[in-house]
Amino acid sequence: MTKTTLLELLAAVQSGSLTPAAATERLANLPYEDLGHARIDHHRALRTGLPEVIYAQKKSPQQTAEIFTRMAAAGSDVLATRVDEATAKAILAAVPAAIFHPQARAVALRQTTHQSRGHIAILSAGTSDQAIAEEAAITAELFNTTVTRLYDVGVAGLHRLLSVRDQLASANAIIVCAGMEGALPSVVGGLVGVPVIAVPTSVGYGASFDGAAALLGMLNSCSPNVTVVNIDNGFGAAYTAVLIARAAAGGI
Amino acid sequence: MTKTTLLELLAAVQSGSLTPAAATERLANLPYEDLGHARIDHHRALRTGLPEVIYAQKKSPQQTAEIFTRMAAAGSDVLATRVDEATAKAILAAVPAAIFHPQARAVALRQTTHQSRGHIAILSAGTSDQAIAEEAAITAELFNTTVTRLYDVGVAGLHRLLSVRDQLASANAIIVCAGMEGALPSVVGGLVGVPVIAVPTSVGYGASFDGAAALLGMLNSCSPNVTVVNIDNGFGAAYTAVLIARAAAGGI
Amino acid sequence: MTKTTLLELLAAVQSGSLTPAAATERLANLPYEDLGHARIDHHRALRTGLPEVIYAQKKSPQQTAEIFTRMAAAGSDVLATRVDEATAKAILAAVPAAIFHPQARAVALRQTTHQSRGHIAILSAGTSDQAIAEEAAITAELFNTTVTRLYDVGVAGLHRLLSVRDQLASANAIIVCAGMEGALPSVVGGLVGVPVIAVPTSVGYGASFDGAAALLGMLNSCSPNVTVVNIDNGFGAAYTAVLIARAAAGGI
Amino acid sequence: MTKTTLLELLAAVQSGSLTPAAATERLANLPYEDLGHARIDHHRALRTGLPEVIYAQKKSPQQTAEIFTRMAAAGSDVLATRVDEATAKAILAAVPAAIFHPQARAVALRQTTHQSRGHIAILSAGTSDQAIAEEAAITAELFNTTVTRLYDVGVAGLHRLLSVRDQLASANAIIVCAGMEGALPSVVGGLVGVPVIAVPTSVGYGASFDGAAALLGMLNSCSPNVTVVNIDNGFGAAYTAVLIARAAAGGI
Amino acid sequence: MTKTTLLELLAAVQSGSLTPAAATERLANLPYEDLGHARIDHHRALRTGLPEVIYAQKKSPQQTAEIFTRMAAAGSDVLATRVDEATAKAILAAVPAAIFHPQARAVALRQTTHQSRGHIAILSAGTSDQAIAEEAAITAELFNTTVTRLYDVGVAGLHRLLSVRDQLASANAIIVCAGMEGALPSVVGGLVGVPVIAVPTSVGYGASFDGAAALLGMLNSCSPNVTVVNIDNGFGAAYTAVLIARAAAGGI
Amino acid sequence: MTKTTLLELLAAVQSGSLTPAAATERLANLPYEDLGHARIDHHRALRTGLPEVIYAQKKSPQQTAEIFTRMAAAGSDVLATRVDEATAKAILAAVPAAIFHPQARAVALRQTTHQSRGHIAILSAGTSDQAIAEEAAITAELFNTTVTRLYDVGVAGLHRLLSVRDQLASANAIIVCAGMEGALPSVVGGLVGVPVIAVPTSVGYGASFDGAAALLGMLNSCSPNVTVVNIDNGFGAAYTAVLIARAAAGGI
Amino acid sequence: MTKTTLLELLAAVQSGSLTPAAATERLANLPYEDLGHARIDHHRALRTGLPEVIYAQKKSPQQTAEIFTRMAAAGSDVLATRVDEATAKAILAAVPAAIFHPQARAVALRQTTHQSRGHIAILSAGTSDQAIAEEAAITAELFNTTVTRLYDVGVAGLHRLLSVRDQLASANAIIVCAGMEGALPSVVGGLVGVPVIAVPTSVGYGASFDGAAALLGMLNSCSPNVTVVNIDNGFGAAYTAVLIARAAAGGI
Amino acid sequence: MTKTTLLELLAAVQSGSLTPAAATERLANLPYEDLGHARIDHHRALRTGLPEVIYAQKKSPQQTAEIFTRMAAAGSDVLATRVDEATAKAILAAVPAAIFHPQARAVALRQTTHQSRGHIAILSAGTSDQAIAEEAAITAELFNTTVTRLYDVGVAGLHRLLSVRDQLASANAIIVCAGMEGALPSVVGGLVGVPVIAVPTSVGYGASFDGAAALLGMLNSCSPNVTVVNIDNGFGAAYTAVLIARAAAGGI
Repeated sequence: MTKTTLLELLAAVQSGSLTPAAATERLANLPYEDLGHARIDHHRALRTGLPEVIYAQKKSPQQTAEIFTRMAAAGSDVLATRVDEATAKAILAAVPAAIFHPQARAVALRQTTHQSRGHIAILSAGTSDQAIAEEAAITAELFNTTVTRLYDVGVAGLHRLLSVRDQLASANAIIVCAGMEGALPSVVGGLVGVPVIAVPTSVGYGASFDGAAALLGMLNSCSPNVTVVNIDNGFGAAYTAVLIARAAAGGI
Repeated sequence: MTKTTLLELLAAVQSGSLTPAAATERLANLPYEDLGHARIDHHRALRTGLPEVIYAQKKSPQQTAEIFTRMAAAGSDVLATRVDEATAKAILAAVPAAIFHPQARAVALRQTTHQSRGHIAILSAGTSDQAIAEEAAITAELFNTTVTRLYDVGVAGLHRLLSVRDQLASANAIIVCAGMEGALPSVVGGLVGVPVIAVPTSVGYGASFDGAAALLGMLNSCSPNVTVVNIDNGFGAAYTAVLIARAAAGGI
Repeated sequence: MTKTTLLELLAAVQSGSLTPAAATERLANLPYEDLGHARIDHHRALRTGLPEVIYAQKKSPQQTAEIFTRMAAAGSDVLATRVDEATAKAILAAVPAAIFHPQARAVALRQTTHQSRGHIAILSAGTSDQAIAEEAAITAELFNTTVTRLYDVGVAGLHRLLSVRDQLASANAIIVCAGMEGALPSVVGGLVGVPVIAVPTSVGYGASFDGAAALLGMLNSCSPNVTVVNIDNGFGAAYTAVLIARAAAGGI
Repeated sequence: MTKTTLLELLAAVQSGSLTPAAATERLANLPYEDLGHARIDHHRALRTGLPEVIYAQKKSPQQTAEIFTRMAAAGSDVLATRVDEATAKAILAAVPAAIFHPQARAVALRQTTHQSRGHIAILSAGTSDQAIAEEAAITAELFNTTVTRLYDVGVAGLHRLLSVRDQLASANAIIVCAGMEGALPSVVGGLVGVPVIAVPTSVGYGASFDGAAALLGMLNSCSPNVTVVNIDNGFGAAYTAVLIARAAAGGI
Repeated sequence: MTKTTLLELLAAVQSGSLTPAAATERLANLPYEDLGHARIDHHRALRTGLPEVIYAQKKSPQQTAEIFTRMAAAGSDVLATRVDEATAKAILAAVPAAIFHPQARAVALRQTTHQSRGHIAILSAGTSDQAIAEEAAITAELFNTTVTRLYDVGVAGLHRLLSVRDQLASANAIIVCAGMEGALPSVVGGLVGVPVIAVPTSVGYGASFDGAAALLGMLNSCSPNVTVVNIDNGFGAAYTAVLIARAAAGGI
Repeated sequence: MTKTTLLELLAAVQSGSLTPAAATERLANLPYEDLGHARIDHHRALRTGLPEVIYAQKKSPQQTAEIFTRMAAAGSDVLATRVDEATAKAILAAVPAAIFHPQARAVALRQTTHQSRGHIAILSAGTSDQAIAEEAAITAELFNTTVTRLYDVGVAGLHRLLSVRDQLASANAIIVCAGMEGALPSVVGGLVGVPVIAVPTSVGYGASFDGAAALLGMLNSCSPNVTVVNIDNGFGAAYTAVLIARAAAGGI
Repeated sequence: MTKTTLLELLAAVQSGSLTPAAATERLANLPYEDLGHARIDHHRALRTGLPEVIYAQKKSPQQTAEIFTRMAAAGSDVLATRVDEATAKAILAAVPAAIFHPQARAVALRQTTHQSRGHIAILSAGTSDQAIAEEAAITAELFNTTVTRLYDVGVAGLHRLLSVRDQLASANAIIVCAGMEGALPSVVGGLVGVPVIAVPTSVGYGASFDGAAALLGMLNSCSPNVTVVNIDNGFGAAYTAVLIARAAAGGI
Repeated sequence: MTKTTLLELLAAVQSGSLTPAAATERLANLPYEDLGHARIDHHRALRTGLPEVIYAQKKSPQQTAEIFTRMAAAGSDVLATRVDEATAKAILAAVPAAIFHPQARAVALRQTTHQSRGHIAILSAGTSDQAIAEEAAITAELFNTTVTRLYDVGVAGLHRLLSVRDQLASANAIIVCAGMEGALPSVVGGLVGVPVIAVPTSVGYGASFDGAAALLGMLNSCSPNVTVVNIDNGFGAAYTAVLIARAAAGGI
């Protein structure tokens, strides 16, 4: 439930098209809807500006599909991440309008129409980091932010990065996905004047320790405009980038 | 050298108060000034919006003081972090107008006057986290951002946090400093709709491993608007928070 | 063998319904029964108040089923944890009265009837933590403790937790299962005056390191009434919670 | 402020010895008192049964002394842990009735008189663990719990432990402090039917990694009645042990 | 090639049954036989008292079978460890007299007949540790040492260990296999006057970190007669235990 | 594109066999060719002396095959590492002249003919390290360096290493692949006067932690001519060894 | 109390020189003597063959001196390890016959006279490891074992080790102290047929992680006759080496 | 003893200026000279091309000075690293011609005169890394290699690095010292065609873990011409760089 849908609900009451009793019942679902195994936080958008997103890992396909269905029924855009094939199938069976993005392992449902607000760039150091970059891109686009994808611009061939420098300049925030040594955020951070959100990926030889090396590298960035999210957490990076882009584009 | 001082320089050339030769000489110092042991990045502000800051750790007092002096001579505001007593003394001997903040271990010199742009809140979980919170606060204030300090609002006494909820609502970005389990950013992140920058501090019993526990906690935050900086890195958190606040306040 | 069954045995001797020779033989099984690969600690209940429980991991289905059968033959309630499909099948073939709880990966056999003593609450931060929470619940219920399940009450939506606060108040001990940053035990700990037993779960993105982040978070809890068990060890948490609930309900 | 002092306050209002205005003022300090650097949680005892305790590490002596003084002024018993010489001096200068326990690094002030409720045993594996065991003992005694100290009963000389077995039997909860391999809690856990709270200590050769080895050992205990607190956290162990002992002794 | 077979070879030369040329050729194989992918150290037994053993992990079945065959051809007893089903099949196809021990994942070939020398005991803390204990037992028996197996004698039920104390007393060396907290070697070490070789096993809940917790526990043993081998390395423990038992039994 | 092919291109322009327009188009592909998911760095050889190599891990077979095809089309030798069966199939379908080396998990395509320059030796400690050693060997040979393979010369049978000492003496650089304790590079380093490049492999029992133990051992080598690459990174070791061998053989 | 002194005591009773009452009193001190902070295990020698040794770290000088004095009073040889200057002073003030070995940080008191039994060699990889090697040597000598010291024979100059090979051959057990990569035990293990006890030392550059690298290296030794003790634990290595040497020399 | 001095010695014998007996005595010192605590490897230069260097850490000033003196007496150039003030004083008292470089913590003695052979560049990311860079520079210069120092060229201000690109082009090998995220070697590696030796430094905020983050970053470099040495090991980097530069300059 967004501020807009809340205002519409209250306007409907004012205009008489919704009885106070019916409105009450709908609002009574707040602060959350209890499914037994999950409590859906419908008014999260009201409180934090963006809707709750379903993290499907270690949930059963049935649990995820049920939560997805309830959130879809509330009329908002819905996103599920870390979705495997079985879970995607279960969601699409229940909500046919949803779209599965297999590389990004995400299922998205768009039900609202909003103007895009703000602009972010998403970089990947190598082709191997693309799945995480796409998770970020799908998330940001569902949240109505314009995304410029700049993939395979790692630091071992610096000219690739320097040739897209102009495209960096126009972004309100930049997401950088990199595995191995995770050096790209530092270099990007030194080139721009906007926040850089670094996403370590679990790409690399043995001593990458499944992304821990990149994570440590990014936390130690000598560029002070770099902040970091969890390994392979493209979703989280997009979430914060969207908030910054919206702020830069004016208002929540 | 900020965009403003660059414009003033070019205007001075236009108006004839500065000869092209003299302007050239000043610009020739770009892209950096080489002290042998350090290359000062004077045009960083031009490129990234905020001036370079001196990280004094493992530099000798003489090295730090020399870099500070050169940056001061360029007319900008100057900040040195991780300053011990001996280094502070060396800086203040060379630049008496600078001010030493012992709790924050920072030396700041204000030479410009700007309107404050944007507003951030800085929270600490406990009194023991205050030194890091102050490093963030001193940094943000030198960068012309309004700071609300909310200290000792840790999650074990939730009413303390809930009672300052209104003060959170007006901030463009929020910095949360916490040691031990580092839980505060997640709770704050669930209450607000702006980016939360989490700073793990090296406060806690043995298994805090000098802040690693808090760091891991914050990286794993279930609130998606949380990004993380290095342990005890109040400066870095402030840097990004200032960029966000400026964007929200309109323009760089 | 519980204290009660021991008293019954001795009473049977006194009353003549059991010959001293037969009683001796039964007691001779103490202190343990040797199966070659395992030594069953039948008098553990006598010594510690609760019967031994079978940890099935890395045991063959045959080994687990054999131990289960012997313990069942001794007349006590029996519990096996970390049971996979093959092992469950082997146990149920041997002891048809046993019940398999697939989500909790546990097989339980109830043979005694006791009044429930004491009351605990079991919380999970998210739906993904439910398997571990259920392992705890099944264990506590077999040990005759009343369980209130409160699932998906994580700290990112604090109102969900605050709305169940009354249900926390009546528990003698509280188990909190959480992955990711593991912050929920600290928040719960600050709200109640009973021991909180924290169970880190292996839920989360890469830098959760399979539950290590949550474990560290919980060990560093700023709420002093929090103690911690191993990652995903719902059984151990239940065991201690049951002991506390029994003590609070009066006597062992 | 404990429940008792609250009841006394209200009784004083009822009896007329305290004006409603004065009572209001005292209650108005709730939920906390803001010192700028710290927010004292005076009604914590009301909420959780035991008063807040001051963790002095990384606080300045002045900060700790000020918090101690305010809490003393509220009439309750006060405890500060992790107190160094300078801080102890500062506290005692402000509150001469307080007592410094140098081995336990704690300062305690007793202002109330209560009957002792419940009984715990505190074991140490070696003489080198004694400082942490004493922190636990001082804490529990200030919280009105009877303490039996059983020091230097480590597993390499099992007869030392077995000879105190009777003293274990009467405790409502047992705290076990051990460094090195941290094996003692498992052995004790197998002997008793009450909760065992394990405190890893930072005692040992290099690969103890400052207590991490003992911590891991205790978390992996094969005795299911063992829960664990942070390295060297005698205070936290005592806090939970006291709650259990009180429950066993009847009522909060 | 053992000392004995070398003496036989030289005696054969002396007696004329072997020509010096033929003897030279056989000795020329020393110091090793080069298979391209492997260099078999035939005279290892001569140098170190026990023959080389094949570590099959990450070798192809063909490579392992070829090495096994060559070593068998040299007339000595042969042992391969970490043998999976496919590799066992390949070995037995080539050397039908060899025996596969599936629980121990070992293939052994006995070709010599020696009197057993010395006596060791092998303990396991739980049934789950049995595979590793059996790897040790198979190894020691092939090396002509008498083995007493004492399984499932973990510290949580101390009476099980104490009841086999007499059997410990007669061993020249003791191997203790334990996962979880790895406490058993310390307790055993305190009861006996012979070397205890501790083998951590990868048995346990999440924070056992695949045996690292047990490993650290054993390295930190407070019993000074405990030394440690790698996680799940039953073979290595047996090797050293055999050397000690032989020394105690007199001579190499 | 190597320096040689660049010179040929310019010579072709000079001689009239290539129009300036055509040459321009070919050079215009520089600095890289953008496939959307990848930016191929064709002029890397020009800049660094050796062509870019495809790291196939976490790339789809289609992505790897497409990059391989484009690089083959540019006329240079092409190498892909970390190639699984499916990817090898996809590459060979597109570029039938390429050769798959299954043990080394590499696909190589030779299109140029160059004199071999320089000589390296590649050692493995055991047969289990051979896959990594072969990755290094295939790489070096494609880069026109002579390779001497010396496998299974680990330190537990020192005579095996000492017997190949002469073969070490003639190499310009030495690669040493070893798992377990990773001791071989130190011993080799003490015997020779050329750089030793150490490759830790993920071979060993539990506490090898998938090669981390060998990695740490090699980083701590007491032989100062040892430098280290990532775990199982035979390719990287070969790359640097080739550069050294070329330098020693005269010029780049 | 050793077996010998026990026999003497009983003989004294038999001969009438000691009254049964007096003998009883002395034996009554068994199993241990309780000093409050410590329980001295006087009959440890009876049980395990060697007397208890005092680990002085984290004990106060007074505590250590008191324990030392009591053990000295019992007539046995006494050893304290990890002794700093202040503690040494306190011991020597109480027991002037004791001798302080500053490099080994040990205080030893010899009161018995025994024939030396068995022979061990102690190797150090470098001069920097000497303090730990000396702790082992002092321990073994007090326990009546002959020690051959072979220092600075690290693997980077293999000829140094090979030149002392004869001295290795006569030892019943070998202790190898090494920091950095900890490779020496593997090389030594391949040369000899007796147990090698490896002691990692905290010597090395940053990534030695205070001895953890050497520890891991030794645990992963490819020589199967290597077992390992804790970092810098020369005492523990000596203890086990002495037991082996005694066994080899015939009897306990 | 270098090859040259060996040739001179033999020539002296040939010419009669040295008696065979005297020559024998001097050669008899080979393979090493035994000081009791150290065995000096005088013929290391003969075997490996460069003389042994003294690692002074954990050696006493007396031990280091004695080793230094003996090596000086042999006529070669001598270097001691990790030298503190007291050790420097002890060396200079014994060998007044030696020079102490306090920033590099090294003492060097030059006794030979050789032409410089080869050329390396040494880069540091920041001023704080300078001590380690200087250790490398002092080492390389003593070994007769030309050094270009390029300090404070970290990736956050890329133009600083790009402006020295020409100076990189002429080096035979490049050493890159960097702390924090350790990204500089990857960027440099992508710009040049010679080996890059990466030295992680212990510079950075908490999660640098004393250089471990930089170390991991460098091991995971996406530039394949990067190899890595231990944290803060400027000496080791220089040693290998010198070997490469000599090879490139022609011959050992």
